[in-house]
Amino acid sequence: MSFIDHLNHCNTWNSQAFFPFYVNGERLGWTRHAVAELLACDFNSDFALINSAAPQLQWKSAPATFNDRTDAMTAISDALVTRQLLPALHSEYYPVTPNERGNAQFLIDRACAPLFGIRTFGQHINGFIRRDSELLLWIARRSPNRRNHPNLLDNTVAGGLPWGLSLRDNVRKECWEEATIPAALADQARPVGAITYCHATTTGLKPDVMYCYDLELPDEFVPQCNDDEVAEFLLCPIEQVIEYVRETQEFKLNCNLVLIDFFIRQGYINPDDPDYLNLITRLRSPLP
Amino acid sequence: MSFIDHLNHCNTWNSQAFFPFYVNGERLGWTRHAVAELLACDFNSDFALINSAAPQLQWKSAPATFNDRTDAMTAISDALVTRQLLPALHSEYYPVTPNERGNAQFLIDRACAPLFGIRTFGQHINGFIRRDSELLLWIARRSPNRRNHPNLLDNTVAGGLPWGLSLRDNVRKECWEEATIPAALADQARPVGAITYCHATTTGLKPDVMYCYDLELPDEFVPQCNDDEVAEFLLCPIEQVIEYVRETQEFKLNCNLVLIDFFIRQGYINPDDPDYLNLITRLRSPLP
Repeated sequence: MSFIDHLNHCNTWNSQAFFPFYVNGERLGWTRHAVAELLACDFNSDFALINSAAPQLQWKSAPATFNDRTDAMTAISDALVTRQLLPALHSEYYPVTPNERGNAQFLIDRACAPLFGIRTFGQHINGFIRRDSELLLWIARRSPNRRNHPNLLDNTVAGGLPWGLSLRDNVRKECWEEATIPAALADQARPVGAITYCHATTTGLKPDVMYCYDLELPDEFVPQCNDDEVAEFLLCPIEQVIEYVRETQEFKLNCNLVLIDFFIRQGYINPDDPDYLNLITRLRSPLP
Repeated sequence: MSFIDHLNHCNTWNSQAFFPFYVNGERLGWTRHAVAELLACDFNSDFALINSAAPQLQWKSAPATFNDRTDAMTAISDALVTRQLLPALHSEYYPVTPNERGNAQFLIDRACAPLFGIRTFGQHINGFIRRDSELLLWIARRSPNRRNHPNLLDNTVAGGLPWGLSLRDNVRKECWEEATIPAALADQARPVGAITYCHATTTGLKPDVMYCYDLELPDEFVPQCNDDEVAEFLLCPIEQVIEYVRETQEFKLNCNLVLIDFFIRQGYINPDDPDYLNLITRLRSPLP
């Protein structure tokens, strides 16, 4: 294992396996060939696969307005669940945008986003304390009964960024729900950048943007799970976290990237590392 | 003016105007069409322009070993100065590498590097102090008698990374020469990442890597110029520096990028900025 391995595991996008997904002349995502062919066949009143020199999946029945599109896509998502092409919906809505969150064309259920290769957004917070010259990170272990990645290690607080909440409000919400961090303390989380990666799954694609935050916590503060998403919190010297990230797959896949970025910014991975430039540029590759 | 404008000003690379520069089958740089044609004509015992489907400039007389190649390129550089194709040489040597500094194939005089579009490396240090909740940056003003960019504002300490010095030793050297920062203090400069950009000039190309460092200085420490490179040091509240970077071209071109990266890492440019993702990814574009 090496740090670069985690970047390889997260970035499994291969343009040969996907058709671009177009709505009203704008590319908003990517769809696996088999999924696109199935949609164009079984949902042929809604979708068409245009077989030109550069094939593309078109949502041909897309209504003209934001709200009507959202309603129509919700009905399609329900039908996809009925047809068992999707697991249960989350009832949490993500913006569908070609670039930044602010340019959403409609909303889509979180569970349906990967099927159309929609760009998603999340927030990841590294909570840490300093004791003299020592830096210790608060690491979460995901609950054994979570749908995705049970038992794996996680950043102190992390969550998807649903539609309708500001970045600041979602930091507060996630800090409280996952770690009982009060709003006044959550507000001290400092935005420090963003990481991008593009992960292909068997049925879809996740081009993901993770906004990263550093939160220096008071020495006496102990995060506590406030919902059933986190099994326990561990306070670990940074050297131990570095070893875990470099040597194991104990962390949820994308959380490794957030930690590698933290190690770089804090000077624990330094320019003498032969992978330094490669890590830095690949942590922020432009998304397709 | 906007932050993005500085990225546009630094990144003026256009693949249509350059031929790749090859040495022994490996691409090590890029040469402007007119320069390549001139070299292949007037220095035709050394260079050839291979007119295949993808034209390339080849250093056909390149010796086999590192030292012999360096000597031969020094002789060529001298001849280029004699022919007035280059200004005076610096007598400071840069490694010629397809990727990281450690993979150098030979050395080239700093003044000659852009003519062949050789990748260069530098170090930029933001020195700052904290007073209560206020953050103040030490800004350098370049001496009026410098060859390049006289009188412009600059990072606290910045310099090219010559061959034969470790990253740490060069930080010490530049800190002492430019700002009289003693070694013990210079050693506290924390590596925080790297920035890449690719700048085309009228005769060449500068694909540049800037290793970035944050150095929190004691409140009472005042940097002082130790050579003739810096005219004065200014202690500026970060809000003022942000305004200067956003609104003016007072800073040397590439120093703007180092400051924009600092503003992002310190949370002064935050994810609500509509250019946030664009800034973050473009500060670290893969070099050609």
